[in-house]
Amino acid sequence: MYSFEELALQFKEKFEVPHFPAHPASLYEPNNYFLTLGGKRIRPVLCLMGNELFEEINPDAFHVAAAIELFHNFTLIHDDIMDKAPLRRGMQTVHEKYGSSTALLAGDVMLVAAYDYLNKINNSYSRKIIHHFNKTAREVCEGQQLDMDFEKKDNVHLDEYLKMIELKTSVLLASSLKMGAILGGAGLGNQQLIYEFGKNLGIAFQVQDDYLDAFGDPEKFGKQKGGDIIANKKTFLLIHALEAGNSTQQSHLKELLNSNNPDKVEKVVRLFQETAVDKWAVDLKEKYMASAMQNLEDIAVISSRKQPLSTLANYLMTRAH
Amino acid sequence: MYSFEELALQFKEKFEVPHFPAHPASLYEPNNYFLTLGGKRIRPVLCLMGNELFEEINPDAFHVAAAIELFHNFTLIHDDIMDKAPLRRGMQTVHEKYGSSTALLAGDVMLVAAYDYLNKINNSYSRKIIHHFNKTAREVCEGQQLDMDFEKKDNVHLDEYLKMIELKTSVLLASSLKMGAILGGAGLGNQQLIYEFGKNLGIAFQVQDDYLDAFGDPEKFGKQKGGDIIANKKTFLLIHALEAGNSTQQSHLKELLNSNNPDKVEKVVRLFQETAVDKWAVDLKEKYMASAMQNLEDIAVISSRKQPLSTLANYLMTRAH
Repeated sequence: MYSFEELALQFKEKFEVPHFPAHPASLYEPNNYFLTLGGKRIRPVLCLMGNELFEEINPDAFHVAAAIELFHNFTLIHDDIMDKAPLRRGMQTVHEKYGSSTALLAGDVMLVAAYDYLNKINNSYSRKIIHHFNKTAREVCEGQQLDMDFEKKDNVHLDEYLKMIELKTSVLLASSLKMGAILGGAGLGNQQLIYEFGKNLGIAFQVQDDYLDAFGDPEKFGKQKGGDIIANKKTFLLIHALEAGNSTQQSHLKELLNSNNPDKVEKVVRLFQETAVDKWAVDLKEKYMASAMQNLEDIAVISSRKQPLSTLANYLMTRAH
Repeated sequence: MYSFEELALQFKEKFEVPHFPAHPASLYEPNNYFLTLGGKRIRPVLCLMGNELFEEINPDAFHVAAAIELFHNFTLIHDDIMDKAPLRRGMQTVHEKYGSSTALLAGDVMLVAAYDYLNKINNSYSRKIIHHFNKTAREVCEGQQLDMDFEKKDNVHLDEYLKMIELKTSVLLASSLKMGAILGGAGLGNQQLIYEFGKNLGIAFQVQDDYLDAFGDPEKFGKQKGGDIIANKKTFLLIHALEAGNSTQQSHLKELLNSNNPDKVEKVVRLFQETAVDKWAVDLKEKYMASAMQNLEDIAVISSRKQPLSTLANYLMTRAH
């Protein structure tokens, strides 16, 4: 059994090959640039871990992992266009560096490259894997669309937000694990459990991310404190505060959202505390984390095989960034 | 053997099913809207014809044809964003009607839907078909990127333009035929010939398209006369005129390109005639058409099977629009 770090290294070595032809450079250089920005490669490694939970790693797991990572990068390139984001991992985004049209096309060929990797895997499970990959791809697009829809909506309910986060973020983590499990020969019940584990872990992770924006130590977290608050971004905290606060707190919060008050972050954070949204978020995160750990517990393999995933889950939930 | 029209009708019937889930409507309604704009469905029908050239139609050919048509629509939605085109087939483009971000995502899920159809076909040839599909998808993106690169370039040589047209337009026609041929059990030599037939036909078609913009009867052609000239679009005619004209003609042409002269179209057309570009274009089209017909001739099946493709090629080359 390998740890996350060991598998991340194995994946990195296999993934450091050219994924694109040299010409035309105007199309493929942006792709290569974006891939060198790196990232923690969590999703492909989850695929390898999902495999190894059940069986020694199937060489095809590296193909599926590469497809997942290319797919994830495709979504990032396109999301950055939609969000007009200037930076990604501290570097210029593709559309900022090469223009929106090239970024659009670079994303498109990145997705095609993902399918090239899926086309390498063994026929005996390729149909099942591709079916699952496509379903996930559709869901991630749906999540991004809902996220954009919510920007224009005044009232977003918690259950709607949860569904959006599930689609935009969680299903790819869940699906990465599940595709690995399929390659590891897992039965349907175990496939479902590892999927739920990933989904619950993903939601817990997002709750934590939203929480840290308001309550994290900016130095450890590595991001501007209250970035979501400044951008009026809908988060677990904001949505719940708007539902749980009394009418005075609700109108105060709405007023702040529409203002350029220089103490906006401080005041919103104080309102989050007054409405006990901070404690609620910690509880919510722990609820999803507990569900995830229960899912892992329920998977019918000996517990020693679960160690790397359990370690990873705990690491992700105590991370400072 | 079926004619193009008969196969177009068969394809239409099979293709008129929901390709997308109902929710979220904000994502999928744009896709459904775009598909209802129709089009002649030339590419999917070429796939069916490529199949029937060799063998009775394999039911999987309809899956591949659907994938091709969805892929083609994906490229149109994304190209329209890049070209900032307000209209497509006389109707609002997706980005114009629903916004650029939604159009981007709608294109993305359209491509995923194409791969869903490819995932239905029989294992015995799925790897080969998907390999070919991916190669073509990459090439079409490369063609679009080169087209954008050329917009910013002063001097584009004929061979560069030809390569761009080949990638952007011809390879999908060629590949549609070839994938059909693979499903029809064609040997490698015949696969290559039908591919070359499609490629040459596609180039001939584009030469004709460029020619009709300047010399066609606008009433029959159904487009504004000289639309390409007004937009300073690089075409076979413009590129050759800039290479073949004497230095006076060349500078006159360059001057006109940078002007808002109200008689721009008329003057450029006259220059095309003075440099004999009109005759050159007709010859070029006929050269590619002759190559295409020779490719068809060389395919090792009895000539009666070639009739529908030969009729279609002649129809396309004498079309008024």
